[in-house]
Amino acid sequence: MARVLISYFSKSGNTKEMAQSIKEGLDSLGDIDVDLKKVQDTTIEDLRSSDGIVIGSPTYFGVMATQVKQLIDNSIQCYGKLVGKVGGAFTSSGMIGGGNETTIMSILQGFLIHGMIVQGVQKGNHYGPVSVGAPDQEVRDECVQYGNMIGELVKRLR
Amino acid sequence: MARVLISYFSKSGNTKEMAQSIKEGLDSLGDIDVDLKKVQDTTIEDLRSSDGIVIGSPTYFGVMATQVKQLIDNSIQCYGKLVGKVGGAFTSSGMIGGGNETTIMSILQGFLIHGMIVQGVQKGNHYGPVSVGAPDQEVRDECVQYGNMIGELVKRLR
Amino acid sequence: MARVLISYFSKSGNTKEMAQSIKEGLDSLGDIDVDLKKVQDTTIEDLRSSDGIVIGSPTYFGVMATQVKQLIDNSIQCYGKLVGKVGGAFTSSGMIGGGNETTIMSILQGFLIHGMIVQGVQKGNHYGPVSVGAPDQEVRDECVQYGNMIGELVKRLR
Amino acid sequence: MARVLISYFSKSGNTKEMAQSIKEGLDSLGDIDVDLKKVQDTTIEDLRSSDGIVIGSPTYFGVMATQVKQLIDNSIQCYGKLVGKVGGAFTSSGMIGGGNETTIMSILQGFLIHGMIVQGVQKGNHYGPVSVGAPDQEVRDECVQYGNMIGELVKRLR
Repeated sequence: MARVLISYFSKSGNTKEMAQSIKEGLDSLGDIDVDLKKVQDTTIEDLRSSDGIVIGSPTYFGVMATQVKQLIDNSIQCYGKLVGKVGGAFTSSGMIGGGNETTIMSILQGFLIHGMIVQGVQKGNHYGPVSVGAPDQEVRDECVQYGNMIGELVKRLR
Repeated sequence: MARVLISYFSKSGNTKEMAQSIKEGLDSLGDIDVDLKKVQDTTIEDLRSSDGIVIGSPTYFGVMATQVKQLIDNSIQCYGKLVGKVGGAFTSSGMIGGGNETTIMSILQGFLIHGMIVQGVQKGNHYGPVSVGAPDQEVRDECVQYGNMIGELVKRLR
Repeated sequence: MARVLISYFSKSGNTKEMAQSIKEGLDSLGDIDVDLKKVQDTTIEDLRSSDGIVIGSPTYFGVMATQVKQLIDNSIQCYGKLVGKVGGAFTSSGMIGGGNETTIMSILQGFLIHGMIVQGVQKGNHYGPVSVGAPDQEVRDECVQYGNMIGELVKRLR
Repeated sequence: MARVLISYFSKSGNTKEMAQSIKEGLDSLGDIDVDLKKVQDTTIEDLRSSDGIVIGSPTYFGVMATQVKQLIDNSIQCYGKLVGKVGGAFTSSGMIGGGNETTIMSILQGFLIHGMIVQGVQKGNHYGPVSVGAPDQEVRDECVQYGNMIGELVKRLR
């Protein structure tokens, strides 16, 4: 069975809520083992054993949060083992506006450097889901659809 | 049979040479119809009918050349029709150093906005092949491997 | 007297309206000769003779529009002559959401490659003004403040 | 007297060597108090009391290292107090090629979000100095010139 990891860092709860909606979108497809974890609890083995990796971070100064970068930097331990896996990213921003797109791109760049596969979103936030403040219904729907898209890509690639 | 389009803009011939090496890498896989074209001769129908689209541009001020952006802007005519196709990008830079990575990213962003699928490179220039000046053997090899990677992804996704 | 050029491309009129608000912010400072022009009418001499250059583009596939890239590519004619000048960028997006930040960054990258000076925005859209659809009062105010910021930086640097 | 902080993270010593060359370029101007520090030893007061802040990081997965992001994230404590200061960035990359430009941009984005002022480099690596492996004489010279440029901009702005 395909396995997708959703790993997130959340202080306000907004990024966590987005993560849960993405899980919902993945679960709805069936036949995918979805693992939802805090970034602090995510292990190198989690990365290695997943077919898809979706990472969420708040927008901190236009780049993923330190805690998320820590996981990405640690992933050097499995460098070369993630080639061809699917990657995705999402972000929420709090009071400090701006920098959402570059935050998502900062995560996707790490995936590309691992030789991973990334898909953009034709309808909605193109690089990955963005929530300004708490996710409303529209953002939650977008996250569910993003989960769908990631899951379908993982299945196509197996 | 899968179809991959390589569309490039080249003034000095360097980007063209890279395009030819990428074609070689794609051709070597067999069972792929590879179309190599100048960006000026590339039609919307070419984009629409391809399973993979690889675009090359010289590095002009850290972003793809005007002639390449023209094709990307014209692609609004088939917006929604490229979802799930594979995209790739490469660049050469002349005398003015710097901006290679952001040039490749400027093309990949367009692909993501189309809902297309992009893979990074684990070994070599991670976002896509880069040549500083005329491509030497190392760059040509990297382009051949990039063609391989794109072709294999296109095949996996069919 | 300091001279600031605002050069824009606008199809819907939204980017033009933003340009006019930025002009208002610059004019309010006094002692600055502000030139507002379509990008198609902007000459190399305009770039060369300005102390500050602010460029606006709609968001087309996450990068400035072809017409704007044409001006940036033409600026190779005055390469080395823009060092130390102030640059700024703004964008409006239409129906196709996403890509605003990367569009602004695509313009700022060109400025950095020219050796120009760029300031971020602490309050508001951090990389430069963004309007989703027609500019409302909040966006217009942000544009006026951006004009202020650019004008003050130009004055500090003279 | 103007004060410029150079804050770096270095494991191999390469980024540290670049930092020292940038200090040399700043020192040569005279009348600037230059503070060279490890990022781990850099305090919020250091950021607040400087007229210019130059940050160096190795290239880790296309984005600044965790240790550097930690400083940027901590800088929320002086958010609003860095407006109008000068920022600069540099990077070295080890075995894993690629991602240098995006690493520098990831730091510059933080500066822009603080409302800081950034200058590009006309000659050399345009977004800021890059060393692939240990800095050779050419890279060291580029770092000295970058120090000059930063110092002159800080002086112009006082």
